[in-house]
Amino acid sequence: MNITETIQHIQPLDESAMQAARERQNQLTKPAGSLGRLEELSVQLAGIQRKPLPEIKDKAVIVMAGDHGVTAEGVSAFPQEVTPQMVLNFLAGGAAINVLARHVGARVVVVDTGVANEIDASRYKRDLLIQRRIGPGTLNLAQGPAMRREQAEESIQSGIEVALAEISKGADILGTGDMGIGNTTPSAAIACALMNVSPEKIAGRGTGVDDDGLKRKISAIEKGLAVNKPNANDGLDVLSKVGGFEIGGLAGMMIGAASKGAPVMVDGFISTAAAMIAVTLAPQCKHYLIAAHRSKENGHALMLEWLGLKPLLDFDLRLGEGTGAALGISMAEAACKILNEMATFGEAGVSQVVG
Amino acid sequence: MNITETIQHIQPLDESAMQAARERQNQLTKPAGSLGRLEELSVQLAGIQRKPLPEIKDKAVIVMAGDHGVTAEGVSAFPQEVTPQMVLNFLAGGAAINVLARHVGARVVVVDTGVANEIDASRYKRDLLIQRRIGPGTLNLAQGPAMRREQAEESIQSGIEVALAEISKGADILGTGDMGIGNTTPSAAIACALMNVSPEKIAGRGTGVDDDGLKRKISAIEKGLAVNKPNANDGLDVLSKVGGFEIGGLAGMMIGAASKGAPVMVDGFISTAAAMIAVTLAPQCKHYLIAAHRSKENGHALMLEWLGLKPLLDFDLRLGEGTGAALGISMAEAACKILNEMATFGEAGVSQVVG
Repeated sequence: MNITETIQHIQPLDESAMQAARERQNQLTKPAGSLGRLEELSVQLAGIQRKPLPEIKDKAVIVMAGDHGVTAEGVSAFPQEVTPQMVLNFLAGGAAINVLARHVGARVVVVDTGVANEIDASRYKRDLLIQRRIGPGTLNLAQGPAMRREQAEESIQSGIEVALAEISKGADILGTGDMGIGNTTPSAAIACALMNVSPEKIAGRGTGVDDDGLKRKISAIEKGLAVNKPNANDGLDVLSKVGGFEIGGLAGMMIGAASKGAPVMVDGFISTAAAMIAVTLAPQCKHYLIAAHRSKENGHALMLEWLGLKPLLDFDLRLGEGTGAALGISMAEAACKILNEMATFGEAGVSQVVG
Repeated sequence: MNITETIQHIQPLDESAMQAARERQNQLTKPAGSLGRLEELSVQLAGIQRKPLPEIKDKAVIVMAGDHGVTAEGVSAFPQEVTPQMVLNFLAGGAAINVLARHVGARVVVVDTGVANEIDASRYKRDLLIQRRIGPGTLNLAQGPAMRREQAEESIQSGIEVALAEISKGADILGTGDMGIGNTTPSAAIACALMNVSPEKIAGRGTGVDDDGLKRKISAIEKGLAVNKPNANDGLDVLSKVGGFEIGGLAGMMIGAASKGAPVMVDGFISTAAAMIAVTLAPQCKHYLIAAHRSKENGHALMLEWLGLKPLLDFDLRLGEGTGAALGISMAEAACKILNEMATFGEAGVSQVVG
């Protein structure tokens, strides 16, 4: 199924399942509405999964890794060799996302969408690292398109396929994660292009660049927007001009999940840029997205606002990898359990509101 | 050990454990500081547990139930019979706190500190409901002291003992929870007395009173403050004049936990009022407290500010029972696991920051 067909399969949320979930919330032994965001979340999940009692049992955080030619502009505090090193750290289970995914009972799925340097994964089980390489890193977006339009399409397509594969294995929810030295720069460029705002409003310190690094980053984005003139009405154009392979993959993953009625827990800055691409291509996929957290990275709050998503957590996270998404998934699971496991007033013999 | 002796046992946090935790955070495979609140939390927990690698394995949410004579003023949307009904719901495992505690792997400990109506717990295992009854509900604080000073002392003392018992059973962290129809009224009265602010600033809709109910609530608090003149420098005086048995119990629990080097995850509005009593009696116990969330209840943000606590979650919860504390405990556990389980740069062979 190609991208257009997949997008056509995205349905509006199931209103009757949502209504049933709302009614059940009001019968559970607590004042109506007193579980706030957990109640809202349970209703959204009912609509997404198209059943009054949504369930989250099999959880997967999909971490997409890719490299970025724009690192040549000196936009990151870390060298590009860290991308494959961290991929190996994911496979070994020693990264933050591994710890947090274990904590919430989620599996971590690692995808190479185009890491520049070789990843020697020979000592790990075959298929532990999913190969969906679009190329050996993108080109330098400050000097021309980061990738060709067909590569942008291919990245979306492979993201869709990865999502569908995990859902067919049983995943009830997908979390997004990213790894790619320099990838806050293309993410900020995407946001600037789609929101038509200046890089100063969006670009932040990423993994921790100093003042000069931040200036170089802003300048790289300015150059990239000027030289590439991305078309804000064309998600594929924006992605190809100033995006990244893993960002395209994550956008595809969101579209794929939405087409199958699966919720997506959106991680931080990079994942939110991917969500902006996904929603530009398929506006109806927005309802399948849950924003896990508001990151410390500069423009993230504005980007979430543009998407109309209210983040669950505000923990000053700025790591990526899906770390915020893992924590968010646990909240979504809690929301489902409230609907499924709490006693009603009738069952528990508890009196309701006076009068 | 009496209250004064217990308070004397509260030590400052262990600075060297905190420093070791900070240093380890900077060696883990992530940009320094990029896990935000989780890193701060891990350092605080190291200081509390007095070890560089704090651990949270055995988790307990202690739900203290009590009734309030001030319900005679029409301050709640629910009748007083709901308190024992909900206690039975806790024992049966059907309430929100049971669901969320199971979700995060915590046990629920239910304490009757003074429920007005009889609780027939005969079909449950003996000791499942801990009996620490100070009296059959408090008196109406709008017309005189809610309890005698010795009862206030007794409630603190029993809270200390409950905390010590759970810690001696192995609990690494305690969450606070409350149940008591009408108990947002004494909680707001405590906050007004200690912060010297008017009830309008603090009192909210609790479980959902209408405009008239809110007026009655504010008026009850005004009368209570005028008739009782609680002394803001004397935590026991404030507790006895306008408090509640479960609020005293929770304050004692915080003091007891702090005296044993155990962290306390503070739930919402009622638990925060208890924290204000605890900190008035024992200022050094503040460092052992973690605010789980900012509740939707009116004055909660101001109360947290007064305590100098920054809440972890902002989910518009207003249920109590320890529901926010349960979710917060999971975050504290995640923070500990980051310190314990993540690979360092050296272990994973990952390059550090350039330059």
